[in-house]
Amino acid sequence: MATDAAARSAYSPRDFRGLTFHDAARRFAEGADTPRAYLERCLETVAAREPAVRAFAALNEAGARQAADASAARWRAGRPLSPIDGMPVGIKDLLETRDMPTEMGCEAYRGNFPKRDNAAVWALRQAGAVVLGKTVTAELGGSQPGPTTNPFDRTRTPGGSSSGSAAAVAAGMVPAAIGTQVLGSIIRPASYCGNVALKPSQGAINRGERQATSQSTHGVHANAVEDMWQVAVEIAARAGGDRGSMGLMGPPAPPLPVRPERLVAVETAGWRQLDDASRAAFEAAVGALRDAGVSVLRRGDHPFIEAFETAIADASAAGSAITAWENRWSQRALVDANPDGVSARAKAVLAAAEAMSVADYQARLAERGAAQLRHAALAPMADAVIGLASPGPAPVWGGDAPGRPPVARPTGDFVFNAPSSMLFAPVVTVPLMAVDGLPVGVQVMGQHGEDARVTAIARWLLDAVEPMAS
Amino acid sequence: MATDAAARSAYSPRDFRGLTFHDAARRFAEGADTPRAYLERCLETVAAREPAVRAFAALNEAGARQAADASAARWRAGRPLSPIDGMPVGIKDLLETRDMPTEMGCEAYRGNFPKRDNAAVWALRQAGAVVLGKTVTAELGGSQPGPTTNPFDRTRTPGGSSSGSAAAVAAGMVPAAIGTQVLGSIIRPASYCGNVALKPSQGAINRGERQATSQSTHGVHANAVEDMWQVAVEIAARAGGDRGSMGLMGPPAPPLPVRPERLVAVETAGWRQLDDASRAAFEAAVGALRDAGVSVLRRGDHPFIEAFETAIADASAAGSAITAWENRWSQRALVDANPDGVSARAKAVLAAAEAMSVADYQARLAERGAAQLRHAALAPMADAVIGLASPGPAPVWGGDAPGRPPVARPTGDFVFNAPSSMLFAPVVTVPLMAVDGLPVGVQVMGQHGEDARVTAIARWLLDAVEPMAS
Repeated sequence: MATDAAARSAYSPRDFRGLTFHDAARRFAEGADTPRAYLERCLETVAAREPAVRAFAALNEAGARQAADASAARWRAGRPLSPIDGMPVGIKDLLETRDMPTEMGCEAYRGNFPKRDNAAVWALRQAGAVVLGKTVTAELGGSQPGPTTNPFDRTRTPGGSSSGSAAAVAAGMVPAAIGTQVLGSIIRPASYCGNVALKPSQGAINRGERQATSQSTHGVHANAVEDMWQVAVEIAARAGGDRGSMGLMGPPAPPLPVRPERLVAVETAGWRQLDDASRAAFEAAVGALRDAGVSVLRRGDHPFIEAFETAIADASAAGSAITAWENRWSQRALVDANPDGVSARAKAVLAAAEAMSVADYQARLAERGAAQLRHAALAPMADAVIGLASPGPAPVWGGDAPGRPPVARPTGDFVFNAPSSMLFAPVVTVPLMAVDGLPVGVQVMGQHGEDARVTAIARWLLDAVEPMAS
Repeated sequence: MATDAAARSAYSPRDFRGLTFHDAARRFAEGADTPRAYLERCLETVAAREPAVRAFAALNEAGARQAADASAARWRAGRPLSPIDGMPVGIKDLLETRDMPTEMGCEAYRGNFPKRDNAAVWALRQAGAVVLGKTVTAELGGSQPGPTTNPFDRTRTPGGSSSGSAAAVAAGMVPAAIGTQVLGSIIRPASYCGNVALKPSQGAINRGERQATSQSTHGVHANAVEDMWQVAVEIAARAGGDRGSMGLMGPPAPPLPVRPERLVAVETAGWRQLDDASRAAFEAAVGALRDAGVSVLRRGDHPFIEAFETAIADASAAGSAITAWENRWSQRALVDANPDGVSARAKAVLAAAEAMSVADYQARLAERGAAQLRHAALAPMADAVIGLASPGPAPVWGGDAPGRPPVARPTGDFVFNAPSSMLFAPVVTVPLMAVDGLPVGVQVMGQHGEDARVTAIARWLLDAVEPMAS
């Protein structure tokens, strides 16, 4: 395992072996390992890496040890609650937990401690998972960064807003963590940190009290598709989906790899701003797919694909406007109650929302609905859509310069992620590439409800496509 | 105006004249009346009737007087903020208000005072409305009654859970009030209290922080269709609909009356339990419609209607199960934090939710979706669906008998209302009937988004159909 003796440890998607759980759990059943021993190894990694990575906003080591011991007893008795019984997990600090504060990376929520579990957290505990800590989030899930650094280069951002979840998984402190995404807050940090991650179909995992916006989701960061899927499906089996939604309905065990027959590779609005090395790496991945016998369609190949690219070109602005509007009342109340407790970045978002009219919001909803129709039109054409999971590797971030305007996207740009959120579409990212010694993901997007299908295709990609390193 | 010298004042839909605002506002413009004088008349009625009716959980008379004076200045300057500038309104005590506590009729929320406005309350203030008080709700919007009595007979329930909103409007204490409905909490009390009321299309009015369940809505109680519509449309023009919803998009002024060509009159599961007088009154209303040249179809007239009746027959159980499941995590947290602060009725609902599985919930969602398809199939067949708004007049309610099991439906049965909530359909009730000297409403239901159409038809019914009294 890499240490933080150096600020930088070159990442290779071929060689990186992240901490996984599904294989360890097999050894619990045999008696060759225990959840408590597994947890202690995680805690050793936390001790070694957390001082530099700073992935956690809170840790409950005592509670975790107690839960791990209870899990160990269940495994000994041959009665684990689920395949993730005993799995240490991190919970993004936007979700309420009964045993730790929920501070949301926001000064105004310092000390906030509602002493109740979000539905997904409740479900994880029901499945026997060990809630080790709250992971750092950018302020309120927005763009004001927390203290977390990228585990592969501490001068760089881990991405946001699920910064701590992505980094904790990458650093081997936990095998899985819960993140949330509205625009790019799961898939972008997962890409920057070399995670596998699922941003599920809109509504697939019950958000509990966090259903404030129409395109937010809970999702899962992990180092293996198996762990990622199992966490998602165990939550959904107990807490279901969002109110009014059927929720994730895939198989109870990880889907086996499925080779796609045809894929659409999209550029999105991010293509123009992409560095040459990342573009070359993605083109190499497309080439490798074609070598594996997969038809890969591009924007020039069919007018529906071109129309789709056009429909999602403004996804960042559309999703930002929709989300800002939906948050305007709660954010205004927060700022009024605590004017100094919210960052200038968050206040700027509120100001933009307060300049919008209902008609502006409706126009953005109509744009979103039209893009969803353009996406649906691709269903008969290909098994899934693939694309870059971030605009290259994680950018350097060392804080705003005093006296200068704030950096626009300190946790990186969500330009490659905003489309799937806008489309309510499931997406899985896999760490297939390295650019300049840093991870970059390839994402697989399906139609709404096809979470299991994109997971199966993502798994095949990991198995069948040789990682690209530049 | 009736006083409470007698416990009972016989109601006649022909003669009852409720307090309205749209006509008064015309006099504000002319200088013949002022918002402050209007408010003072409301406060006189509050002083006379509130001791018996008990519609309010909180009053802010000083704040209301200040707001009315500000409104008067705007009218004097010829610059009212909207047609409802200066309108005194009541807000159901489930919605947060920055100037009054939000206790939700629940001991566990005693003293809860978040000091922020629900989005709809914010919008009302932006439109110049005068927030006079918080109206009593059954506990948490469920079935444990508050202290409110029926303004036409104090031995009877006003209905629930929007008990105070319906009663305050009926007693002339305010011309309009906000209610909420998940199963029947607007339309049933409106029926029992002789209100006009709108339960809008699902998502049509922004519920703000109260978006916890998938079939709840904010709606409006009033004494005139004009006031009802204006309040709804002024809220929607400022705060829009729920997250991800286009919201109410009807005309900015009340729709004019529209004579329907064809209506479907439904029985629903409530038909079997209906008393003879209420049944006769409804049949007389159907007869009057036919006399006015409207075709009225019944369940035997077409297989689609029969299929629709079948699809909504279990609406009460389906909606109850869906809602209980969606509330289970928050209710469990509430009960755990405050075991004595929640009624036995609410705890029984929680217990039922905790006995459900995700699959049970999904089955109810599928049932709801199928019913919505059966409703959509009626669209080409008729302009709207009509039915009774409650199973006859308000039942007598004097509290549970000590030592006996709690009465099942102390605020009346929502059997006639659960279908429209399950269907996400807009519905307007109008006070067209009296049974045994008490009001009973006729409701008009449209397809999702047809809020303006059902309002126009409801207005025509009030104009064109002679009220039925028995």
